[in-house]
Amino acid sequence: MEFPVYLDNAASTPLDEQVLEAMLPLMKSGPGNPSSLHAFGVAATEAVEEARESVAALIGSSPHEIHFTSGGTESDSLALFGLARAQADKRHVVVSTVEHAAVREAARRFEADGYEVSRVPVDEHGLVDPEEFAAALRPDTAFATVMWANNEVGTVQPIAELARVGAGRGVPFHSDAVQAAGRLPVNVSEVPVSTLALSAHKLYGPQGVGALYVRDGVSVQPLQVGGGQEGGLRSGTQNVAGAAGFGVASRLAMEALEERTRHDTELRDLLIERMTGLPGVALNGHPTQRLSNNAHFRVAGVEAEGLVLLCDALGYAIGSGSACASGGHKASPVLLAMGQNEREAFSAIRVTVGKQNTREEAEGFVAIFAAAAEQLRKLSPLQKTKS
Amino acid sequence: MEFPVYLDNAASTPLDEQVLEAMLPLMKSGPGNPSSLHAFGVAATEAVEEARESVAALIGSSPHEIHFTSGGTESDSLALFGLARAQADKRHVVVSTVEHAAVREAARRFEADGYEVSRVPVDEHGLVDPEEFAAALRPDTAFATVMWANNEVGTVQPIAELARVGAGRGVPFHSDAVQAAGRLPVNVSEVPVSTLALSAHKLYGPQGVGALYVRDGVSVQPLQVGGGQEGGLRSGTQNVAGAAGFGVASRLAMEALEERTRHDTELRDLLIERMTGLPGVALNGHPTQRLSNNAHFRVAGVEAEGLVLLCDALGYAIGSGSACASGGHKASPVLLAMGQNEREAFSAIRVTVGKQNTREEAEGFVAIFAAAAEQLRKLSPLQKTKS
Repeated sequence: MEFPVYLDNAASTPLDEQVLEAMLPLMKSGPGNPSSLHAFGVAATEAVEEARESVAALIGSSPHEIHFTSGGTESDSLALFGLARAQADKRHVVVSTVEHAAVREAARRFEADGYEVSRVPVDEHGLVDPEEFAAALRPDTAFATVMWANNEVGTVQPIAELARVGAGRGVPFHSDAVQAAGRLPVNVSEVPVSTLALSAHKLYGPQGVGALYVRDGVSVQPLQVGGGQEGGLRSGTQNVAGAAGFGVASRLAMEALEERTRHDTELRDLLIERMTGLPGVALNGHPTQRLSNNAHFRVAGVEAEGLVLLCDALGYAIGSGSACASGGHKASPVLLAMGQNEREAFSAIRVTVGKQNTREEAEGFVAIFAAAAEQLRKLSPLQKTKS
Repeated sequence: MEFPVYLDNAASTPLDEQVLEAMLPLMKSGPGNPSSLHAFGVAATEAVEEARESVAALIGSSPHEIHFTSGGTESDSLALFGLARAQADKRHVVVSTVEHAAVREAARRFEADGYEVSRVPVDEHGLVDPEEFAAALRPDTAFATVMWANNEVGTVQPIAELARVGAGRGVPFHSDAVQAAGRLPVNVSEVPVSTLALSAHKLYGPQGVGALYVRDGVSVQPLQVGGGQEGGLRSGTQNVAGAAGFGVASRLAMEALEERTRHDTELRDLLIERMTGLPGVALNGHPTQRLSNNAHFRVAGVEAEGLVLLCDALGYAIGSGSACASGGHKASPVLLAMGQNEREAFSAIRVTVGKQNTREEAEGFVAIFAAAAEQLRKLSPLQKTKS
């Protein structure tokens, strides 16, 4: 099968060859269960602890504050349900209106369980206002959460300011940094988050592995219980090769942060400049405070799903809204929260670059895009009903 | 590093070469997020769905009843907390006294949350009596759970009878089949379990992958929430290569069930015969209703932890009690539930074989064991304080 050019790196990134090389010996060498006392167990423990150090280094934490999970969604659920359970007398939570589905759906569950949920609005670029955020906090707030950078439109929040507000008010502050880590500096020694969610496969590591940072002194109750692995916070035999892969991916991301940022930014800016020069195409998200690899557009008169499929057929893999939401046919809650109408929301495409992409690939995409959009506009029911 | 002979296959099994071969192309080929619409997403979806069919075939279910998770512990937590949440008016649960830590700790959490927990006792071999089990069920029982086969002593429960009791009384019945699947016939078309927990790395598949079977019509609420993957039961980007590996491991386990059972049983019986012929060594668990690969002993006057470390130094990796409990210094609750005292429980070793082990390896272990136990008895404080 001939695969298209991959421009959907916010959905998942390709596994780095160096990461795979680090995982293979652990997958082949034998059955290491870190809970075992024998040599296999010791080797597995060493691999996991080395990985923990690398992930910790990426975000400036201590290794023991890092807990391996199965991915970003689990890390978010663990943080939010775990923070709330640790302070069962507090029945109010604060979330932004542009969170990843993992946090958005957690908020819905809190409501179902009788919690009061305050949803802090955003401006047209998807930015949370720290003053509005501060106003939402109450003495009975179990936690507040705002993501570091948005997975759809790429807007980067004033996270240091928000976290400081939370810390100043004594409210635990969680941030989903799944898209931010490895793409911009994420340092918990400078930003007083209480908990932070990470995912390996968004930074060229393996799927099925993530981590939750929990600051010393912050109380989080486990989501899945059992053998007491990961400091009792996350039971279950560790995925040794997966953790090791995450560790190497973290180390590489830290070492190459500047280089990758420069590379991605160049391609992103090329895409934004050329695309917004086309008729009917506008940028979504913040013009400057955005992820280095994210270009997100609304394309007037076109349904994004058809456009994604047509681009795929023409050799370019891009995203429609958020990958996690693309299975359903609902307008992106993020775009609606930014004040767009349903028609605009359904016309959104996400083009996200990675370290493996080239300038030629970005230019190639722009070249096929104009023709694809034009072709779809001729067919689209949105176009036909347009006044 | 020179690794010892691995005789701890209940803790984790080596990754089958054919499984790794199936995973590698998916790890290398590109970033497949099954939620994406483009060719990468389609390929990822195909890989995951093919794997789902293979796991379903292993236990005789429909593919849509299989939900991929991160492992056995998550599957147990998802089933138990999810069954209870789906019937929030029922505040009583039934568990056996020999469950894996995942279920045991879940029961403790139910108690902390105000549930009443009935713990069904076992006999000296670790067997649950179906009549006692039936007597524990009540109209307000949210679920009952008994594992298919015990992870420590290997005892296989009369699971068909127990599941039928649950089904007859309308009580959802969960079973942890992590150790059973791939080692004995596990067929949900013959055994009316409501939910069933599986793990890939116990049957020569990768770590970090498991599954929860949920019978059609049984209501389970999710543990982690978000994008709605896995039929809404388990959100989070699927571990595509991991799921594919689990699929191949399941297919191989099904195809080779008879051959593996014969091979393992031969080595197990050799171990049991030779070991119980040594002074002070007795078998734990049921003499006949036990897993084909499990030999579990108490060794009079010896502390298991020291014995495991000494055997390791002499070239043989075995387990002390359950791997999941070996981090702590508590006597195995399973052995205590079987009527053993603390001294007996602390003297327990688990020798579990796998398809890669040879007769020579089993014989080699027995040969070094007697000397190792004798050496430890001379040093052991248990021995010194023994009357």
